[in-house]
Order: sequence, then C-alpha cells, then structure tokens
Amino acid sequence: MTWETYLVEHQSRHQDELLHFLSIPSISSLPSHAGEVQRAAQWVAERLTAAGLEQVQILPTGGHPVVYGEWLHAPDKPTVLIYGHFDTQPVDPLELWDHPPFEPTIRDDRVYARGASDDKGNMLTPILAVEALLKSEGRLPLNVKFFLEGQEEIGSPQLPAFIASQRDLLKCDLVLSADGAQYGEDQPSLLLACKGLAGVQIDVRGAKGDLHSGAYGGAVPNPIHALTALLTSMRSPEGKILVEGFYDSVLPLSAADRAAIAAIPFDAQSYQERIGVTALLAEPGYTSQEHLAARPTLEINGIWGGFQGEGVKTVLPAEAHAKITCRLVANQEPATIVELLTRHVEKHTPPGIQATVRPLPGTARPYLVPTDHWGNQAAAEVLREIYGKEPYSTRTGGSIPVCELFLTHLGAYTIGFAWGLMDEQVHAPNEFFRLSSFRRAPIAYCKLLHRLGEK
Amino acid sequence: MTWETYLVEHQSRHQDELLHFLSIPSISSLPSHAGEVQRAAQWVAERLTAAGLEQVQILPTGGHPVVYGEWLHAPDKPTVLIYGHFDTQPVDPLELWDHPPFEPTIRDDRVYARGASDDKGNMLTPILAVEALLKSEGRLPLNVKFFLEGQEEIGSPQLPAFIASQRDLLKCDLVLSADGAQYGEDQPSLLLACKGLAGVQIDVRGAKGDLHSGAYGGAVPNPIHALTALLTSMRSPEGKILVEGFYDSVLPLSAADRAAIAAIPFDAQSYQERIGVTALLAEPGYTSQEHLAARPTLEINGIWGGFQGEGVKTVLPAEAHAKITCRLVANQEPATIVELLTRHVEKHTPPGIQATVRPLPGTARPYLVPTDHWGNQAAAEVLREIYGKEPYSTRTGGSIPVCELFLTHLGAYTIGFAWGLMDEQVHAPNEFFRLSSFRRAPIAYCKLLHRLGEK
Repeated sequence: MTWETYLVEHQSRHQDELLHFLSIPSISSLPSHAGEVQRAAQWVAERLTAAGLEQVQILPTGGHPVVYGEWLHAPDKPTVLIYGHFDTQPVDPLELWDHPPFEPTIRDDRVYARGASDDKGNMLTPILAVEALLKSEGRLPLNVKFFLEGQEEIGSPQLPAFIASQRDLLKCDLVLSADGAQYGEDQPSLLLACKGLAGVQIDVRGAKGDLHSGAYGGAVPNPIHALTALLTSMRSPEGKILVEGFYDSVLPLSAADRAAIAAIPFDAQSYQERIGVTALLAEPGYTSQEHLAARPTLEINGIWGGFQGEGVKTVLPAEAHAKITCRLVANQEPATIVELLTRHVEKHTPPGIQATVRPLPGTARPYLVPTDHWGNQAAAEVLREIYGKEPYSTRTGGSIPVCELFLTHLGAYTIGFAWGLMDEQVHAPNEFFRLSSFRRAPIAYCKLLHRLGEK
Repeated sequence: MTWETYLVEHQSRHQDELLHFLSIPSISSLPSHAGEVQRAAQWVAERLTAAGLEQVQILPTGGHPVVYGEWLHAPDKPTVLIYGHFDTQPVDPLELWDHPPFEPTIRDDRVYARGASDDKGNMLTPILAVEALLKSEGRLPLNVKFFLEGQEEIGSPQLPAFIASQRDLLKCDLVLSADGAQYGEDQPSLLLACKGLAGVQIDVRGAKGDLHSGAYGGAVPNPIHALTALLTSMRSPEGKILVEGFYDSVLPLSAADRAAIAAIPFDAQSYQERIGVTALLAEPGYTSQEHLAARPTLEINGIWGGFQGEGVKTVLPAEAHAKITCRLVANQEPATIVELLTRHVEKHTPPGIQATVRPLPGTARPYLVPTDHWGNQAAAEVLREIYGKEPYSTRTGGSIPVCELFLTHLGAYTIGFAWGLMDEQVHAPNEFFRLSSFRRAPIAYCKLLHRLGEK
C-alpha cells in the first residue's frame, strides 16, 4: 500500500479526528480554559503516538505546554522540525457565529469551528502525512521532530526561554511551519520574509512649565515645533528614511526579487478604495508593492503635546511626545536602528530644547529565507507539482517571531507550508477550513518529506 | 485752594473710601456674587456723583452693569473717556491669604485686598483727581466721561455689543485706561501696542480607519507625518513664519521703535533661568526682545493623533490634529491670516491626505498707538515730570480687547495710565496696592487732564 492509498482509505477517520480535535475549546488567552489547552495537548500527544512518533512528551514551559515527538531513524538524512499550535483565539462575539464555535459543523465541504484554519486543521495534516508514510513505507525519508505549542495566540511568552533551553532536543536542519496560508485556492505561495521591528519614544521638553503664548511666543522654544521638525527630518514625504546610516545594512533587492514581487497581483485602485485613500506612497526608486514587501519603513504611531480640548487655549506648551516604529528588513539590527534614531535626534535637536529617546519594547529582528535555500526550493517544487503553477514568493510587513527564534537558537530557517486562505475568518466569527485543503495538505507533506530526504 | 492741597487734605478720607470699596466682594465670575457686583456699581455711581460728575447712571448690559458719568462743560476742548473696572477675580485658594481678601488691611504702606491693584485702587484715582479739580478750580480743563465696567475679569462678554450700541453716549477723542501697570516703582512706562490673535485647528485624515503599520506602512500615507510636515513648513526653526503673504501688512519697525524696545532692560540669562530654557529664539534680523514685543508669532498650542498610551502600538493612524494660534501686529487682520493659513495648508497637503482648516474662536485685531499721538505725548510728559525719567514704550504680546473695541467703535486710541506693579499679586493670593501709588496717581491724573486740555 502506498501512502497515497493510505491517505484515501483513512480520509473519513482523519476527518472525524479533526472534528474531535476542534471540539476542545483550547482558548489560550482565558485562564479558565487552561485545562482545555492541556486537554488539547493530551489529544495531540496521543495522536502523535498513534501516528508512530516516538519520545512523545508534553513539556512544561511555565505557561501552556509544548508537545514534542520524534522519529530519528534516518542517520544520513537531514532533520526537519515541524511547527504548529493547538491553542485557539477566543470566540467573542459569540452571537455572530452561525454554529457554536466548538461544535464543528461541516457544510459545503468546509468545516466551521474556532481554530479550524488557525491552526488545528493545518497542524493535523503533517501528523497524518507522517502516519501515512510510516504505515505504508515503514519508515520516514528523513528525521522528523514535532514541536507543537499551546500559546501562539497569546504571543508565545514562554517560547524564547523554552527554545533557548532545549537546543539539543530541538536541533534540526530545517523548520516546516504548519501555521500559515497560501495565496489563493488555485495559487500557491511561499513566505520568504517577515519584517523586524524597532521603535522609540521621543520626549521633547522646552520651558519648565506651560507658558502664555502671547507673553513668551517668539522667544521661547516651543517643543511641538521642535518635535514636528525632528520627525519631518527623519523621513521624506515619499517615505524615504533620512536617518543617517539607516539603510547601511539593508540587503539590496535583486532583479529576481523585484520580478518575484511584481509577479504578485496588486491592483492599486481597489487597494486604495478598500482603505480609503486617494494616493499611495513609495520610496523613490521602488514601487509601492516593493516598499510594502521588502523595504524598511518608519511610521509615527502617535504624537501628543499641549492643548487637545475644544476651542482655543493660547498655551506655549512645555513638552511634546511621539512614538515611532520602524519595520526592518534583512540585515538590519533593531539595536542599531534604535542607536541611529537616537543619534539623529541628538544631532537635530534645536537649541533650547531637550530631547530624550527611549527604546520601545517589542523589538524583532527581520527574517529572510534565501530564495535558493534547499528547503525553499523543495517546497516550491512540491507546490508547483500540486497546483501546476509557480508559487508566489511573498513577504510580509508583519513579524512572525517564531521564525526568528528558530533561526537564532537552532540555526534553522523556517518554510511556511500550510493551507489557510484569506477568507477563512481567522480570529473572527464563523472561522472555517476547506476540507479540500485538509485532503491536499497531507499529500503535499508526504511529497515534501520525500523530496527533502533526497536533498 | 489748589487741587494739590485738596488731595493732601482729603487723603485720609480717600484712603478710607478705598478700604470701603475694597470690602465689597464684587467677584464677577461667581453667579452668587452678582448682587455684590451690583452693590459695587452702586458705590461707584455714588462716588462719581459725590465727585461732581453729572448724568451718573448704572447702565444695564445684559450682564454685569456699566457705570457712566460725565462732565461736558468745556465746549472747545477735547473729550476723554476714562476706563476702569470694579469687578474682581475670585479668591481661591483662600487658605493662602494672610488676611481675609475682602477685609482690606494696611501694612507697610500697602493695602492688601482682592482687587486692590486690579483694579479698584487704580480705578478710584481718576475719580479723586476729577473731584480735586472740580472742588478746587470749579471746572475741568476738558470734557470727561467715565466708563467703568463690572465684567472685565470674565472677558467683558457684553461689552462689544454695548459699546457698539452706545456710540453717541461714549463718543470721545481719547480713552484713558485706569487699568494697567507701570514698569517699576521708579520707572514709568506707556503701553504702545497689544498683539492680535488668530488661530486655526488643522484636521488631517489618511485612510478610513487605523491600519496595521506592518501590513500598510510604506504605501499608505500617514496623517501624522503629513501634519508634522505641514506644521514644519509653516515656520523656520528660528521662528520666521513661512506662510506666504503672512508679513505683507506688518508695519515695519522704525529705528526709533527698535531703540525704544532696546531701551527696556532685558537680561536674557535670568529670563532663560526663570523659565528653564537654555536658549532663546528670534526671527532672523530681530532680537528676541523685538520678536516678543513687536513681531508676529505662530505657535502650535496642541497636537494629537494615534497612540498615546504606555508601551508600543504599531498603528498607522487614520487622523491627526493640531491647533495653532498666531499673535498679530499692526496692521495684520485676523481674517486674512486665517485665509493665508488655510491656503498654505491646501497648497502643501501631500497626495493621499485630506486636510481641513477650521478657524478657532477668540480672534483679536492688533492694536498700536502711534508714538507721536497727542495723548501718548501728553502722558509721556506727565510721567517724565513725576518720575524724572523717560518712560519706556512697552508692547505686550497679549491682547487687551477693550483698546481695540474703543478704536473700532469710537475711533479713539487708549492710553494706559495706571499704577499697578508686577509684584502686586494680581489674580493671586495676598493681592496688594501700594498706597504711594494711590497718592501719586490722582496727582498724575490732574496734571494729565490739564495737559490734555491744552492740546
């Protein structure tokens, strides 16, 4: 029996298992549901064992647990770590759901439930693939470790320390993430890059206290003027960042990179209409798409100072504040960017004004998989074979911290290999997952594991 | 008997009258004290009658009243209108007063009470002068009208309509204001100019709603960036206003004007220390003193937009706002300035951003007495004679709306002729008035009325 036959023959059981898995309300953000997250971990551990994984363990993290399992009997082959998560978002507002969120319902070849697409439906598919390979071939084409977590939806607070402390257990050559999406139902994609993040708060002070603008205006420096000038000096109207050294470590976009970005459909007109603006920006020399995908940004997230009430108050205020964050691309370092921003403010602070710069929490390093990485190439080959189309190489302006964690602590890149789609109401009422994806994904994983075993 | 002798002989009675006047708690901002403001009006009316004024009336305004009195028996002579106010500020915080604020107390040749300096002590002195002239000479050297109001401390809300409707009654050639100050105990001054005021709120909008800075940053216009650039484009770092046409109707400063401003002591070091800044600004080509006194200003009074909380929120905000006010000098018109600001914003709004400009309430026209005005010259002569010193010609960055009202509706300039001093705790606990000023002021008024009668 081939793995293909195995998957077809056990399809109905696998679907029942998915429904069972989805019925566990493993909402990680609700302390009252900690037991359900634990119950989901238990279910996952049993499922890994049933699939033929070894050393299956529920590992404590100090928060919601991690489930681990392995099959390491291919000594000359690479090791892949497969990532996913079994916790879910909350369900509010409950009244907008057509069915109870933890009573999974199948309609039109879709399963409706909280966590169906994000991430239980996706997470289960590599387990089914490994089971199919072990039951049909008696072995896997390479070494596999599963790393499935229960705290993704609350930002994985314990994961950095956990991964750092379990380097040996988690050691691998490549990570496959079963958490993610494809571009479209008929159009595959591979996520190449996430942006990093660094931010600062700028606090600007003039006089000791607020002053009368009539008595002091014209001679006493106004911190709001100083702040607006500082902020204006940091970025051109088009979005080019004018902070000295800001682009120094940015990897240039190759012609191939630019072609890959241009290949992804982008209708500026409908994009503008959707968000309600009449024009888009772009750093000179780049398209808006390139800027969105692959160039760093600097955005003022907030500003405040002086009088904000109704009417008029002729005050010359004593202080003003702004928060800015930069989205970073490879190989910018958040700490360096904070330093450059600080130096810029120091250099451009006008006389009579005191400015201080404080780093904001939540930094992230940018992440970029080399296009020609063997894992990326293998995944592209499988997607091309299954969809009959060249996958888009996508880049996101957001951050996926776990990719960076795996790279930093394990030295391994992460290939997103998952089947969510944009319309599946992730984090919203009536979340669903396409059963066509649920059937296609294990096939894709079997093919990918084989192909990676040949690399 | 000369008026000088009259004043000396009746000094003790005049001082007792002042104490009585100060004991009336005529706080105009407290509705509960409206009767006391009325009682003060009654006292003033009786005092005018006792002094020999005619047609004395308490005139209704729709709010606190105005007291009017006249002596118009000098047909070939000019008419002066003498202004002052009999209402007071509130007294909070009461616990900081050494004596009850409406139980006037004399100590060290000063009278302590709310309203002592602002303005009852000052206001009473021209009445005493007129009484002394009438009792000693049987006539006045020119025509005199008294216009004493009860709502100055709440911004004289009914006065514009009242003055506009009483043009015939109030018709005059010159106004003398008994509300104001001298530069120092031994240094006289004359107020030449007040600045006007015009302001706008700028509301800037980008997308329909707040966006994720990772997903949209770089392509979607950020209204805070647009606003900071707009504001920065309006004023140079030194304070020169870059709004097209802004200075077009500004009267240039003559060499004499600049010399008069430079004659007033200004210790930049101690000024900076007092307000807590390490540098002062000045429009290029002007000193800080000149900018403070006699050049228009543009100050951002408040700014807000996006996230202002603790920590980080990577939002690309949908809107941002700022309030700016300009202090104007002769002959700038507030409405024109609002129009120029609006045009500037329209011209400099970047693509993809919508900006609207709304005028702020509280505009005021600038006010400037020509240095060589006969009233100003007469007042300078009297001050020179009394103090033995050349009076400083001062200009204030604030607005004194009543000056502009008299000029607009009566065609008459206002000469400030009053004796408050900077340290007299006006609007604060332990307000006091120097009895030396109370004795000197009627003498100065007698001399001034004579001198004006000769012009």
